[in-house]
Amino acid sequence: MTRVAILGASGYTALEAIKLLLRHPQAEITAVTSRQEGNAHIASVHPSLARRLDIRLENLEPAQVAGRADCVFSCLPHAASAEFCAAVVKAGARVIDFSADYRLGDADTYAQWYEHKHPDADRLGKTPYGLPELFREQIADAPLVANPGCYPTSAIVPLAPLLAAGLIEPRDIVVDSKSGVSGAGRTPKLTTHFPECNESVSAYNVGRHRHTPEIDRICSLASGKSVEVIFTPHLIPMDRGILTTTYSKPTGDVTEQKLLDTLREFYEDEPFIRVVEHLPGTKDTVDTNFVDVTARLVRGRVVTISCLDNLIKGASGAAVQNFNIMFGYPETTALA
Amino acid sequence: MTRVAILGASGYTALEAIKLLLRHPQAEITAVTSRQEGNAHIASVHPSLARRLDIRLENLEPAQVAGRADCVFSCLPHAASAEFCAAVVKAGARVIDFSADYRLGDADTYAQWYEHKHPDADRLGKTPYGLPELFREQIADAPLVANPGCYPTSAIVPLAPLLAAGLIEPRDIVVDSKSGVSGAGRTPKLTTHFPECNESVSAYNVGRHRHTPEIDRICSLASGKSVEVIFTPHLIPMDRGILTTTYSKPTGDVTEQKLLDTLREFYEDEPFIRVVEHLPGTKDTVDTNFVDVTARLVRGRVVTISCLDNLIKGASGAAVQNFNIMFGYPETTALA
Amino acid sequence: MTRVAILGASGYTALEAIKLLLRHPQAEITAVTSRQEGNAHIASVHPSLARRLDIRLENLEPAQVAGRADCVFSCLPHAASAEFCAAVVKAGARVIDFSADYRLGDADTYAQWYEHKHPDADRLGKTPYGLPELFREQIADAPLVANPGCYPTSAIVPLAPLLAAGLIEPRDIVVDSKSGVSGAGRTPKLTTHFPECNESVSAYNVGRHRHTPEIDRICSLASGKSVEVIFTPHLIPMDRGILTTTYSKPTGDVTEQKLLDTLREFYEDEPFIRVVEHLPGTKDTVDTNFVDVTARLVRGRVVTISCLDNLIKGASGAAVQNFNIMFGYPETTALA
Amino acid sequence: MTRVAILGASGYTALEAIKLLLRHPQAEITAVTSRQEGNAHIASVHPSLARRLDIRLENLEPAQVAGRADCVFSCLPHAASAEFCAAVVKAGARVIDFSADYRLGDADTYAQWYEHKHPDADRLGKTPYGLPELFREQIADAPLVANPGCYPTSAIVPLAPLLAAGLIEPRDIVVDSKSGVSGAGRTPKLTTHFPECNESVSAYNVGRHRHTPEIDRICSLASGKSVEVIFTPHLIPMDRGILTTTYSKPTGDVTEQKLLDTLREFYEDEPFIRVVEHLPGTKDTVDTNFVDVTARLVRGRVVTISCLDNLIKGASGAAVQNFNIMFGYPETTALA
Repeated sequence: MTRVAILGASGYTALEAIKLLLRHPQAEITAVTSRQEGNAHIASVHPSLARRLDIRLENLEPAQVAGRADCVFSCLPHAASAEFCAAVVKAGARVIDFSADYRLGDADTYAQWYEHKHPDADRLGKTPYGLPELFREQIADAPLVANPGCYPTSAIVPLAPLLAAGLIEPRDIVVDSKSGVSGAGRTPKLTTHFPECNESVSAYNVGRHRHTPEIDRICSLASGKSVEVIFTPHLIPMDRGILTTTYSKPTGDVTEQKLLDTLREFYEDEPFIRVVEHLPGTKDTVDTNFVDVTARLVRGRVVTISCLDNLIKGASGAAVQNFNIMFGYPETTALA
Repeated sequence: MTRVAILGASGYTALEAIKLLLRHPQAEITAVTSRQEGNAHIASVHPSLARRLDIRLENLEPAQVAGRADCVFSCLPHAASAEFCAAVVKAGARVIDFSADYRLGDADTYAQWYEHKHPDADRLGKTPYGLPELFREQIADAPLVANPGCYPTSAIVPLAPLLAAGLIEPRDIVVDSKSGVSGAGRTPKLTTHFPECNESVSAYNVGRHRHTPEIDRICSLASGKSVEVIFTPHLIPMDRGILTTTYSKPTGDVTEQKLLDTLREFYEDEPFIRVVEHLPGTKDTVDTNFVDVTARLVRGRVVTISCLDNLIKGASGAAVQNFNIMFGYPETTALA
Repeated sequence: MTRVAILGASGYTALEAIKLLLRHPQAEITAVTSRQEGNAHIASVHPSLARRLDIRLENLEPAQVAGRADCVFSCLPHAASAEFCAAVVKAGARVIDFSADYRLGDADTYAQWYEHKHPDADRLGKTPYGLPELFREQIADAPLVANPGCYPTSAIVPLAPLLAAGLIEPRDIVVDSKSGVSGAGRTPKLTTHFPECNESVSAYNVGRHRHTPEIDRICSLASGKSVEVIFTPHLIPMDRGILTTTYSKPTGDVTEQKLLDTLREFYEDEPFIRVVEHLPGTKDTVDTNFVDVTARLVRGRVVTISCLDNLIKGASGAAVQNFNIMFGYPETTALA
Repeated sequence: MTRVAILGASGYTALEAIKLLLRHPQAEITAVTSRQEGNAHIASVHPSLARRLDIRLENLEPAQVAGRADCVFSCLPHAASAEFCAAVVKAGARVIDFSADYRLGDADTYAQWYEHKHPDADRLGKTPYGLPELFREQIADAPLVANPGCYPTSAIVPLAPLLAAGLIEPRDIVVDSKSGVSGAGRTPKLTTHFPECNESVSAYNVGRHRHTPEIDRICSLASGKSVEVIFTPHLIPMDRGILTTTYSKPTGDVTEQKLLDTLREFYEDEPFIRVVEHLPGTKDTVDTNFVDVTARLVRGRVVTISCLDNLIKGASGAAVQNFNIMFGYPETTALA
């Protein structure tokens, strides 16, 4: 049995992590923390957990958390997360960090996109990126894993194999993503107020979304090329799900069959990547840890379409998958 | 007073056309036709029209329609529409055709994309495309106007000025569109069944949507260049609205300011195009005849974002705008 | 031409009032106020108004407002509204108050349900309730009109005629209402955060919603009986629309036909009440000033179903209707 | 290991049953049938099942099904279901029937509400109603169990204990239910076409919904009184979830506390009934087998509010719960 603590337990990714862990025969949730909710019962913050998890929120120090858990899921906001996680690791527990703090390769890029100094810069570039389909081995032994961003996973899964195989150019890749509103978190604001975002679609953070350097970096790592994407996220009136459409230039003659075969071979043994021939919809993957992905050749340009549940494979499912790898459980435990 | 008949009155574009015309002080709806609904009152098909329009559906011949109306709005399906409209024009009434039948330039392209022989091929290439922002003069005197497709309007409005000014390359333009479900029409099918498309996003007709050659043609006409777009439509769980994101390559050095200024100048006197600095959402334009459009420069690539109400500026509002131009009314009548 | 000022212009009811007034040939919007938005252009708060209304928000005193407008639409919160409106009336302008401040009959009931002392108690009981279908004459000459609540209108329209005709018992009337989220206003909170209220239905304020005494009072006034309702509002994942289902006991033998005939006769000359035989849906009335209403007899109990757009007939459309009556314009102006 | 066959596997309840059974360590899905989908792979009908269930649809006879399965989940339409199920039982397999065929007590009531002769009338009144909270013992040994309707479960759970305790009158009980669209099944029709039912609420089948006699019968069985409800279902623009609000008359003096205590005691040992003090929302129960229920006293009338996931506790979760009871597995297996 592995003891798990969840930091920042009042949000959506924490809720999903809890639901998944409740199905995990080898995981025991031993602490849930929050800095704002006092000593409230978890069910008063997440009514859906009543009768499923009998635990109270606590405001704990890193050493206390490390004393109570073997593995810590940090759903804290960036910057706050790195500070807390560094202390937890030092105190001896292993960490899966849902924030973006350890996803980039160096402190300068981090400072540029996140607009503050990294509190634990030494670990940047050395912390494995928690996408097992690319970095399974490094994840297995790591004290700390950077759980991937939801958009990046949806973009990297289709792009990495095609880049690695040299089928597409690493520059001028368009990544056009459409996300449900839960990706914006649980703090009410005008843009996520129901009558504002319902029955509407809009782009946001065009050209400056923080997942841009993350997609660049991981695609570059996976392919050995210097990848740069033009990333545009859009807000869609639905709870969960991300669909990402990418557009890239083939390096030479390529067929649709070749694109699909390359994806299939790359993910042949992966339990959570489904390379499909039809055009997938986010609903096919909701509440699952799957990424559905396909490719098309349109007027000489490569188009990929991929989708996933932003709260599962885009966050908490990926975390549980990493947890399984880190603690030696079958990778699909609690995720099937 | 101008007498208007509406063909194929049981669908969504017909309903919106009726609502707009009811506000038009110079338009009188004298006939509404349907081949399936027998002699039903319009309110039995569209309950929202009860007490607003007291008229019954009829199954009329072209000559009868022409005898009853000065202007005919055809909401018939393609092919059927051209056949009927040709006869109506011959019988002396003017026509605004909502179908795609007269939007392309030649019979071969039509046959290739619509998979049947055009029933009135002689008018192809001679019928004005009903986007007044580009073809106002031709529309004014035309016996028949090809009302634009919803996706094409959303793509042409941002692209035409930038192409015409030589700011962007005419090839490899990505047009990524997101549309509400009313664009799929009123006939129930599995893909538009609520529990299938709600809470889901998917792409459809990738690489083979029929609006592709229409966008190509009008952008080419507007710019004098041979334009080719990679067009991907997506279905979004909302009633109405289209947001289109385009990605293109600048021809040379260009600034965001230059892009916005070019759009502003092009549409300076246009009552229904709003060039905005913020990122617009479809909700800003719903129930209006506006297109909201902006531009960004992202990593050396031109990104435009535009939105409109697919049933208004994307269909029935455009038709009323054309109607106003054709019959000499102030262009914004019933649309303000 | 009548000059209109709108107080509290950043919310949804103000936005709808503005849109309706823009279509009114005899109304001119001369001031829009807000205490929080500084001197912002109205389009920066409501992007949909760009190019439609060129005016800036101001923070004005009552006397200033009265100097600039003949009629003031107050969309201020309750208590604040009465205080401001009393001063505006004193300064010589007429007022349509969207808040609940003048809807109840006495200061004690007000204090009990709204939990503070009424700032202008003398006008309680003397201010006409702005439901023209019941109080048209009093509205015509009033300096101040209490614009009805959205839920109350949906309940009073079906109940008042049946109560007045003595067909149903005035006690134990169940009013079960379902409302879209715009009824909760524009201030973000957790309950109206998209991922919380989307894909969910819940009841709220059971047994203590402030519209309860308003429904009681107006139904009592309309029927001469002491009416008491059990009112339960529910939040529905949609932007706008209210559907209300009432359950009451017939006083004696009654048929469904008699119920429908009573409603039809009562509303015979009313332009905005549609007594229908089918079961209406809120979508039939969205963006209109109509109430659709029907009745059924189920196992000896009277069931009525009524629906309206909470922002139009439930707020701003009713206000424009009252405005037309107060200033001598045809009642349907800007509402057809 | 228990072998399970699923009849009528192309619909939503079948899909949910499959998903739950895939998590059941003791259940093996050995056959899935469909009369329309030929020999298609289950994933071509339900894309979300790709890589989770590798099986093809078949068109099997009752004896074939009974030869392949110990337990048969019938998701066939009513009438067709009874005919098939009777033959399956005869051939030696046990059956959980999702249709309404065995829920009523006698053939006359069935004929009156379902408008045709019951094909297996002898079993009416003898087949246990699959609500374990009321009929656990009968379910355990039954060859055939009538899986409850979604609306009835939502109404019976709050009403049965209050009726059994004699706290409320058995007559004039109002049951006002709000349901997501998946309850209408997977066959596309105009009323469930997205642009028709999205952004709208409507009542349907008022006074003649077939779940009415089912609620009557089970509440009567549970309380020993002759219960009669006025039942009104409403269609809500969301995928899944039912919230039911009931209104009834207390038999004497009663407090809110007494109501809640009565519910709590009745369901004290039930793993899937959560008696709560707050007002629950359907989202709290989505994807779970819980019913959340509370009670209020409003102006001397008893109001209960209950909610559940119509596809889980309202259908497939209940079926798995019954399966567990019938085959001796812990009742919460695959449902926790």
